[in-house]
Amino acid sequence: MKKEGMAAYYVPTNDFHGSEYMGDYFKCREFLSGFTGSAGSLIVMEDFAGLWTDGRYFLQAEKQLSDTEIVLMKIGEPDIPKIEEFLAKRLSDKDKLGLDGRCVSKGFIDKLIKAWKPKNISIEGGMDLVDRVWKDRPELSFHPIWELTPKQSGRTRDKKLSAVRTGMAESGADAHFITCLEDIAWILNLRGNDISCNPVFLSYLYIEQDACVLFGNKGAFSEEITSRLAGDGIQILPYEEVDTFTKNLQNKKILVDENSVSWQLLQNLSSCTLIFGENPSAIEKAIKDETELSNMRKAHEKDGAAVTRFLYRMKQYGKKMAAGNLEEKPITELLAEKILEDLRKEQEGYLFQSFEPIMAYGPHGAIIHYSSSEETNAEILPGQFLLLDTGGHYMDGTTDITRTMWIGKDEDLTPEQKKHYTLVLKSHLALLYAKFPKGISGMSLDGLARGPIWAEGLDYNHGTGHGVGYLLSVHEGPNVIRSGRGKGKVDVVPFMPGMITSDEPGLYFAEKYGIRLENLMECVEEETGFLGFRPLTLAPFEKAAILPEMLNKNEKLFLNDYHKLVYDKISIYLTEDEKIWLKKETQPI
Amino acid sequence: MKKEGMAAYYVPTNDFHGSEYMGDYFKCREFLSGFTGSAGSLIVMEDFAGLWTDGRYFLQAEKQLSDTEIVLMKIGEPDIPKIEEFLAKRLSDKDKLGLDGRCVSKGFIDKLIKAWKPKNISIEGGMDLVDRVWKDRPELSFHPIWELTPKQSGRTRDKKLSAVRTGMAESGADAHFITCLEDIAWILNLRGNDISCNPVFLSYLYIEQDACVLFGNKGAFSEEITSRLAGDGIQILPYEEVDTFTKNLQNKKILVDENSVSWQLLQNLSSCTLIFGENPSAIEKAIKDETELSNMRKAHEKDGAAVTRFLYRMKQYGKKMAAGNLEEKPITELLAEKILEDLRKEQEGYLFQSFEPIMAYGPHGAIIHYSSSEETNAEILPGQFLLLDTGGHYMDGTTDITRTMWIGKDEDLTPEQKKHYTLVLKSHLALLYAKFPKGISGMSLDGLARGPIWAEGLDYNHGTGHGVGYLLSVHEGPNVIRSGRGKGKVDVVPFMPGMITSDEPGLYFAEKYGIRLENLMECVEEETGFLGFRPLTLAPFEKAAILPEMLNKNEKLFLNDYHKLVYDKISIYLTEDEKIWLKKETQPI
Repeated sequence: MKKEGMAAYYVPTNDFHGSEYMGDYFKCREFLSGFTGSAGSLIVMEDFAGLWTDGRYFLQAEKQLSDTEIVLMKIGEPDIPKIEEFLAKRLSDKDKLGLDGRCVSKGFIDKLIKAWKPKNISIEGGMDLVDRVWKDRPELSFHPIWELTPKQSGRTRDKKLSAVRTGMAESGADAHFITCLEDIAWILNLRGNDISCNPVFLSYLYIEQDACVLFGNKGAFSEEITSRLAGDGIQILPYEEVDTFTKNLQNKKILVDENSVSWQLLQNLSSCTLIFGENPSAIEKAIKDETELSNMRKAHEKDGAAVTRFLYRMKQYGKKMAAGNLEEKPITELLAEKILEDLRKEQEGYLFQSFEPIMAYGPHGAIIHYSSSEETNAEILPGQFLLLDTGGHYMDGTTDITRTMWIGKDEDLTPEQKKHYTLVLKSHLALLYAKFPKGISGMSLDGLARGPIWAEGLDYNHGTGHGVGYLLSVHEGPNVIRSGRGKGKVDVVPFMPGMITSDEPGLYFAEKYGIRLENLMECVEEETGFLGFRPLTLAPFEKAAILPEMLNKNEKLFLNDYHKLVYDKISIYLTEDEKIWLKKETQPI
Repeated sequence: MKKEGMAAYYVPTNDFHGSEYMGDYFKCREFLSGFTGSAGSLIVMEDFAGLWTDGRYFLQAEKQLSDTEIVLMKIGEPDIPKIEEFLAKRLSDKDKLGLDGRCVSKGFIDKLIKAWKPKNISIEGGMDLVDRVWKDRPELSFHPIWELTPKQSGRTRDKKLSAVRTGMAESGADAHFITCLEDIAWILNLRGNDISCNPVFLSYLYIEQDACVLFGNKGAFSEEITSRLAGDGIQILPYEEVDTFTKNLQNKKILVDENSVSWQLLQNLSSCTLIFGENPSAIEKAIKDETELSNMRKAHEKDGAAVTRFLYRMKQYGKKMAAGNLEEKPITELLAEKILEDLRKEQEGYLFQSFEPIMAYGPHGAIIHYSSSEETNAEILPGQFLLLDTGGHYMDGTTDITRTMWIGKDEDLTPEQKKHYTLVLKSHLALLYAKFPKGISGMSLDGLARGPIWAEGLDYNHGTGHGVGYLLSVHEGPNVIRSGRGKGKVDVVPFMPGMITSDEPGLYFAEKYGIRLENLMECVEEETGFLGFRPLTLAPFEKAAILPEMLNKNEKLFLNDYHKLVYDKISIYLTEDEKIWLKKETQPI
């Protein structure tokens, strides 16, 4: 930093693509600080180093930073300035801030500049200083890339490229630059393995009406794929050449998504006219076609079978433990994760987990982003809820399901626990069986879903639903169901048939327990011309925790319909014992 | 136009203040075209004249334009270009468009310029050509201004000005210019009578930290008010001087609301730095204080009594007519309007109607903005619904209520009519008794309100609720309950205790009937810390049209609670006969 004349250096948690998860190569903040949480930013100065992270990670960060001089900056606490406020105060006129411009967004840089105005502070965005000190840095990951079969992909590469080109022309652009890895994988019907839990590959895609360049590691493409891509007019250039390539572009009108393109790339494109807009592939990808949908339904049957068998096994285990069966060895959270993944692995076409599993026993369930580790690994014993929020990638789709089950004797459930479970179920059913006209977006539906929980003076501090990709990321927009809290402008995107969204209300009581119930659902057009949803996820709810007297006539109807569907679709995957149990659990109430 | 070298002249429906209703002086479009609807814009060219208006007015405009050469341009119909598209196509490079810049917004001009780029078309905004040909144009209205007593106003002028100055400073401005008449009237605790149905007065207000200038007609202010304003540091300058005054302002940082300030004024202020933002008074005015609230409650008791007596009278009339009582003379829509207003006039402190009344019999109820006239004036006969959406200004507040009543024998109501009435009631109650956390805005609540109606594959084509002023406009933001349909950015404003909003779901069946049920409600903080509403409006619902089996336990509870409140508050205003009837109508179901 001294050598380069930098007063401060900024290290975010990000890769070159704005990804949610990232490969080991990009874990600079973790390398420097030792803090392993999934969110946090580091500022290094001559006489100060600080890590900004949010409430989910305060405890973990305190522990992991305890033997360093790094100050933990708790985001949201009073007196803790935001990074831009901190820099505006600490940096002087003519100071230089260093950062790797490939890992920050335009929005972040705009915020910095606004905050420190009128001070004249320059940004040096072309240097990756961490790389100079990180001796055993992992290589950039370039795993072999594989291609979806026509039965997996539905629309052809050609058709998808053509749709993107139409959108590009409509926005007045003659070229389009994509950095979002999910969009690239989806358009090209290719998948990789460069990021954990997400079958994407490191790449950039540049599209004109008559040309298409894919930046990636040539070695990751088989000859066959390379030649098929060439057949579709797609040329492969080395990943590193994106920098030179973009710097050489002149006088093009280029469509880019300012929320995902890095600041560095925007600098490179300064000889071009930039048109900021959503990638046309974002909405195309969100609206699944019939092939994608029918594959997703199949994946959810298999996944539902695995989860149902897990629920059965854990129910039996809980009852035996409650009965004082001493031969039973306690199952821990981490062991339960393994048991569930093993059941998924038995299913045809299973690939890997679609996100870090949440297997949260008792009070851990109240920690919304809980992730069990050797230090926290609790024994699952009778008398508490177990909350499991897990998912998998299959060759035919991606799943994400949450169930909250009771461990032990049914009669030990308290009236309050049952009330809370039933409230979450009411909210879940209100959304799953909602009907609404075309044009309606997730913000209106969020209120409809929360109604029953709000009515009791309760709420949950997370969104009600997120879009889900097809053999891609479990978090994909633009469809989302949440309440934009506070004053401001909110982006709204209407629901469309073919969109897949989660439905996951919850209730959380610190130190006690958490309840969340999540199904994925597909948006469909009803006979009336209205829209509605159909459940994709198939696994029973916790019957013992439902208070029938809290459900109205319609809610009972909905619940019974759903449970019938679960039995009809899942029972064929089960053993006789499991089937008998599921029959009982899905009896109409 | 020829003399001034104008290729086209634009005449909107607007005054200098962006008001919803306007004084006779401003009815230029009506003067030129003969079309009397409340919305529409005229374009005049050498060989063309066209009137753009929306679906509410197609029939009326067709009739009123029939003996002119003015072409009716039906907004929203295919092949009908928007005004900006039309001008972009018809005007040539270097053409000049004329308009009165005091009557158009910046947003409209921005749209024009964007549409006709790259053509170089100039705008001449300083000439009111209509004035040159309108010989007997009414004078600008400057009725006497009156002052609210401390018991009416709550917060003092001084306190309100101080709040506005704080907001102004927070936005970095050293001056603030207000053109919105409701905001000026509210800040100054003054009222006037220059616009029908809205007790405001023509004026502008300019505020600095140590100075305040009110532009108005000096003759409209009594000596007493003038001297009291001077005591509060407010100088009165003639209304016409606003032009010179704003042109002379130099180097100020001025906060203006770009949605309400005219284009002309923005041109005048070109030597200043403009800070675009909401008027700080907008939110201050929306959050009523305890004085305003308790007065509003009182106004609603009186108004509820008048409406209840009207309902009683019309019910008796309907039953007599149904029984074939030939002595009874048919009541028409216009007569019914008069009967209801006469009942309001009997109430203490009644001033005038707060908007054009909607008294819609039978199929007229399906026309959302119906207004009865000599041509449409229907006789109110048994066997149909009567929808009344009316309101009044009282010395202690403003009301706006909709009821839909059945005329004739209860047993003639069809099951379908009852089902539709009950659905609207369910939606109404869902909102009125909703509980929700702080931070939530009207878009989430809209979904919650529409849920029951959507569930049946039905919907209504208007918002669910609007903010209401205190002895001011019946439509005042920023609080609003609606679903932003389609893709885009939506402004959201969280609810706050003290806001007053309408709750008015409906169902409409063309050529058959319309049902709408509207109460005003105040937002309150519940013991739980959540927010909720309390009804302000007090009048019974149509018991004969309610299907109890369609209401769940909570809905019955809510309805009975509301009806008990109506009886408790209203019965003291009634005669013995009316009281007996109301008792029956408000019996728990």
